Amino acid sequence: MQEIFYPLSVAVIGVSPKPDNLGRNIVGNLVEYGFEGVVYAVGPSGGTIETRRIYPTVLDIPDEVGLAVIMTPARTVPGILEQCGQKGIRWAIIETAGFREFGEEGKMLEEQMVAVAEKYGIRFVGPNCIGVISMENGFCVPFPRLTKFVKEGHVSMISQSGGVGMSVLNLMANEGVGLNKFVSAGNMLNIGAVELLEYMIEDPGTELIFLYLESIYDGRTLMDVARKSTKPILAFKSNIGELGNEIALSHTASLTSDDKVVDAAFEQAGIIRIHDATSLGNSMKILELPVMKGKNLAIISRSGGHAIIAADSCELSGFELVELPEPFLREIEKHFRASVINLTNPLDLGDLFDLSVYAQIVEQTLELDTVDGVVFLHTAISSEENHASRELLGHIIEMVKKYDKPVAYYISASAQEVNYLKQNYDFPIFTQVVETIRALELNRKYCMISRRLQQGEVIEHFAVEKELAAELIRTAQAQKRDLLLSESIQVLEHYGIPTARSVVANSAEEVVEAAQQLGYPVAFKIIADQISHKTDVGGVQLNLRTPGAVRDAYQEMTTRIAKLYPQEDLGSVLVQPMVSEGTELILGGRQDPQFGPVVMVGLGGIFVEILEETSVRVAPISRRTAEEMILNLRGSQILRGARGLRPLDVDALIESLLRLSQFLTDFPQVAELDINPLRVLPAGKGCLALDARIILGSLPFIT
Amino acid sequence: MQEIFYPLSVAVIGVSPKPDNLGRNIVGNLVEYGFEGVVYAVGPSGGTIETRRIYPTVLDIPDEVGLAVIMTPARTVPGILEQCGQKGIRWAIIETAGFREFGEEGKMLEEQMVAVAEKYGIRFVGPNCIGVISMENGFCVPFPRLTKFVKEGHVSMISQSGGVGMSVLNLMANEGVGLNKFVSAGNMLNIGAVELLEYMIEDPGTELIFLYLESIYDGRTLMDVARKSTKPILAFKSNIGELGNEIALSHTASLTSDDKVVDAAFEQAGIIRIHDATSLGNSMKILELPVMKGKNLAIISRSGGHAIIAADSCELSGFELVELPEPFLREIEKHFRASVINLTNPLDLGDLFDLSVYAQIVEQTLELDTVDGVVFLHTAISSEENHASRELLGHIIEMVKKYDKPVAYYISASAQEVNYLKQNYDFPIFTQVVETIRALELNRKYCMISRRLQQGEVIEHFAVEKELAAELIRTAQAQKRDLLLSESIQVLEHYGIPTARSVVANSAEEVVEAAQQLGYPVAFKIIADQISHKTDVGGVQLNLRTPGAVRDAYQEMTTRIAKLYPQEDLGSVLVQPMVSEGTELILGGRQDPQFGPVVMVGLGGIFVEILEETSVRVAPISRRTAEEMILNLRGSQILRGARGLRPLDVDALIESLLRLSQFLTDFPQVAELDINPLRVLPAGKGCLALDARIILGSLPFIT
Repeated sequence: MQEIFYPLSVAVIGVSPKPDNLGRNIVGNLVEYGFEGVVYAVGPSGGTIETRRIYPTVLDIPDEVGLAVIMTPARTVPGILEQCGQKGIRWAIIETAGFREFGEEGKMLEEQMVAVAEKYGIRFVGPNCIGVISMENGFCVPFPRLTKFVKEGHVSMISQSGGVGMSVLNLMANEGVGLNKFVSAGNMLNIGAVELLEYMIEDPGTELIFLYLESIYDGRTLMDVARKSTKPILAFKSNIGELGNEIALSHTASLTSDDKVVDAAFEQAGIIRIHDATSLGNSMKILELPVMKGKNLAIISRSGGHAIIAADSCELSGFELVELPEPFLREIEKHFRASVINLTNPLDLGDLFDLSVYAQIVEQTLELDTVDGVVFLHTAISSEENHASRELLGHIIEMVKKYDKPVAYYISASAQEVNYLKQNYDFPIFTQVVETIRALELNRKYCMISRRLQQGEVIEHFAVEKELAAELIRTAQAQKRDLLLSESIQVLEHYGIPTARSVVANSAEEVVEAAQQLGYPVAFKIIADQISHKTDVGGVQLNLRTPGAVRDAYQEMTTRIAKLYPQEDLGSVLVQPMVSEGTELILGGRQDPQFGPVVMVGLGGIFVEILEETSVRVAPISRRTAEEMILNLRGSQILRGARGLRPLDVDALIESLLRLSQFLTDFPQVAELDINPLRVLPAGKGCLALDARIILGSLPFIT
Repeated sequence: MQEIFYPLSVAVIGVSPKPDNLGRNIVGNLVEYGFEGVVYAVGPSGGTIETRRIYPTVLDIPDEVGLAVIMTPARTVPGILEQCGQKGIRWAIIETAGFREFGEEGKMLEEQMVAVAEKYGIRFVGPNCIGVISMENGFCVPFPRLTKFVKEGHVSMISQSGGVGMSVLNLMANEGVGLNKFVSAGNMLNIGAVELLEYMIEDPGTELIFLYLESIYDGRTLMDVARKSTKPILAFKSNIGELGNEIALSHTASLTSDDKVVDAAFEQAGIIRIHDATSLGNSMKILELPVMKGKNLAIISRSGGHAIIAADSCELSGFELVELPEPFLREIEKHFRASVINLTNPLDLGDLFDLSVYAQIVEQTLELDTVDGVVFLHTAISSEENHASRELLGHIIEMVKKYDKPVAYYISASAQEVNYLKQNYDFPIFTQVVETIRALELNRKYCMISRRLQQGEVIEHFAVEKELAAELIRTAQAQKRDLLLSESIQVLEHYGIPTARSVVANSAEEVVEAAQQLGYPVAFKIIADQISHKTDVGGVQLNLRTPGAVRDAYQEMTTRIAKLYPQEDLGSVLVQPMVSEGTELILGGRQDPQFGPVVMVGLGGIFVEILEETSVRVAPISRRTAEEMILNLRGSQILRGARGLRPLDVDALIESLLRLSQFLTDFPQVAELDINPLRVLPAGKGCLALDARIILGSLPFIT
């Protein structure tokens, strides 16, 4: 992949002398950015541009060529790629649009391109992309004419949209974030986002990666690759809603993925998901700093108002404003003209006007073991201070290196001065107080993410009766149906998920017999794969305390359901003892087209039904992930015994979740699974699946 | 107040020839900004600055002076104010710091200042403030030396912090938002934020007002004034948390107010609360545009990627992407070179490069009756397009006026070009897609706010037994105690809030008698003002179905409680029939130090206990507000009959809330009130207060 970013020689194909020719822009950009290799212009018109010969085809170039950049009409691209192959070119960037997104004809052209590439072993970026930039060697081939608008630095970007990529470059330029490499991935027909990500993770010039994705084709690989990264990965994933989907078809012909699963997958893989440009800019900046290793923060501010706003924000962001030691404060106090200001944290510099003292204060604060990071809120009172103010910034940069702790540097100053600092210092400059604290929260979060990734995930393996479960699934699949309630319950048992004792009964007398065996009170439910929502048809009878009540309920229910389904013989029910201790949860899972099996847990009742509160993760999950899923649920206090309730058996719940994760990973044939409810009993008593539903997908059976 | 912003002549007091003198900066600023009136420099040193005489005192100035700007040491200010009074000056801006925030000595100085001001009828801004700017007449008196960094426009700002005010001015300059007036209100010893707000609402030059507040002294007046505004009011209220409070003491000696009440009060008064600088900048910009009168949006984008991101955002922001009419799309289609792009909404301009056509498309879109607003997402491909691009912006500005609909104009371009547009066009320029849509959501919201404010609020008045309630409160107050359970229930009855039938009983036999009278099952609760949380001591007995059960429960409870409170005679209980239909809610209220009586409603059980979900408003409330409070509750679907539940009597709930609001407004002596639970029965059956608690505050009894 090195050849895509560091080619020794480049043929730009699609150049003509016309002033509005886009290929010409590409050659111009290479010159402007000071590309270190050789550039050949190619175009059927021949002639010259700016004293440079235009070769009719690549075959006419006398020397060897490492990479082709193609910007010619779509219909010509397969032929041109063929010529590149003949010429021995093995790497290409195809910027031309009008393929898949164009319709059937474009799709055919794509297939031809793929065939040619395969024949010659050509690897290519695109088509339908805006190009590539590599700042270190001046390789810059986007088709719009560019000035050197963004400074060189350590952030690399992979963008599925050229337009969005360009606007992020503008954002970076504006925020003073330096670029290392940019690649517009386009239709990703050959080289995809994941492969590019893998390259950036290894690339020595890249320290932070930003991904813009409209679709995810191979979610699992993306997760595996991202997990290995020791560099922060930020990602903006668009195309999340129904409205978005419609446009995707006409744009990069994207596929979409359930957004909650994307959230979960990113979380698990340590990818930081970004939702707007403001937080993107601030996140890129804050991650240039050392990570904040604890939550103890010191705020030093020249304005009392800013100090108040920052303190408010700290509370929301979960920082601790550590108490500063007395001797430290007494030392600081010496610098003040009058003690107008109470010395505390936030430290209000108030009437202290000597900026050289600020540096001392910052250093003394960073020296404190109790301080993990500093927010410095500077106000430039007038332009006469600019020199001293810049000197202070220089000191702060040194101290950040020396103490390996972050100093988030905010300044309120004129636009000119702010821009000077952003463009001339290799250090993040913030201009909004609340946003600075939020960004630092992300820096802290990344510290925890990278620790977690380093520790790795241990996937436990439980001894289960996999073959017995497989047999049930195989049978149902052969009969082209989903699993019956009783079969679903059996499957759970085979995987060691505790279920309520249950007996199948086919008549009123059999139910009474079962009830006597199980002990009153009992409940029973209809067994019928025709009926998916049993409660909707009154197919569940609860809390029956006598044989009479059992008989009446059975009679009433079967009569009623017989009317609803006159063609069927629906007399089978599953009898269980009533369980009323503990709390109901819902456990479940499904196959996601992009990420494969996912597991879900939610508190039952209103939490799921009204608030739609659930926690989702891509399976298989580790014990720690299962714990997090439960801890992250709103209302999870109920499980731990909030408000005088008895603590419930969370360990048993976690184990069921892990076993479910193993089951879903073992059986991709299972499209959807519900355990609803799973009753979690008081601590030490375990949990019980009271109802289960397993729906099979269209995958062929393999085990 | 006109004299504070448009003085005819100004004495700047505290000027000396020293280069770092702050008074000197003030004079410099007046010159720089082209102040239209006369300026006199005053300072004990005498001498001259820049050919201008420094008068030793204001009394030495030969002419009349309209306004004094004071920037001298704190201890000298009362004396100087005295001289101002003698000179006949009736208006002042006191920038000096070091008063209340300094401690006791500063407080005394403040008292002296107030006395002098009263004596002469002087009105003043400050102290401890950074000054005032009025752009129209070049009146600019902040003590830091300023260039003309922000353009003239229609936004006016009142800031309690000078530092924060300056940073917002920098933000406005950066975003191209024009300033009309700025005032740093400081300690607000004489002229407060509310009075300044009143002035800005009337001020012809001001079209939008921004308030930065660290404390709210008279919340009710603020609300009343804000409600009358026909201009949008944005407010950032800091100092929200515990951490913030600590600093407030040392900063502007602020008082704090419960943040949820601030939210409610702002909402009710139509004040838009802002939480960070990003949304402040975007809100100021979007409110320059006409309001969006409906939710139908059209997105026109030059980049497919931006269109996808915008469509995602539209969904989150509640906009409808209207279907564009076929004839319109066919008309548009004619402009495209190749039909590479599917024409739909978002409209992807794709391969259309003729910018003059863009203006036509925007106009044709605005003409559509089905379109309430447009988001135009522009991408500047190269600087050669700048001319055409600016011309397009000019057209859009005209069209916005012509059609009186908002066009949110986003551009991805170089920092230079963006800055050129911001500084030279009187039109909002956005550079972040998601933020643009969010801003437009606010524009839409403001349209609805101003409609609501125009309609006004009708406060219903219920005929109640106020005097009977007063008697109960008076008695309790005389005995220096809160109301007993039975008294609280009676108070509710006097205010027409239905309560469960209840009988007071003092022995096991009396409870049995009461139960027979009320009908089984019954519940009873201990009556004792010593016990505030009855459930914590087992003082509530539920669902008793037989005389035996009643006797046992009474015996057990009284014995147990007698052990806990051996000194007391606690045999009284309130007996009620058990009610199990419907759902439990909590209703309540309290006196807020800044805003007076507030009412609260929440769904019972986990909603309040675990999720802390409640809705709060400042009383008295209108029926519409009561409806909104309930509608805004998470989980309110339960009341309307979600998931097959019976719809409950929301009308009765609303009436109880309104009657509660009337009660709390009638009795400021009530510090806190809980109706917990209020059981809302199925529709048509009303609601019942099952328990109530009224806590009296320290206010003397007046009725």
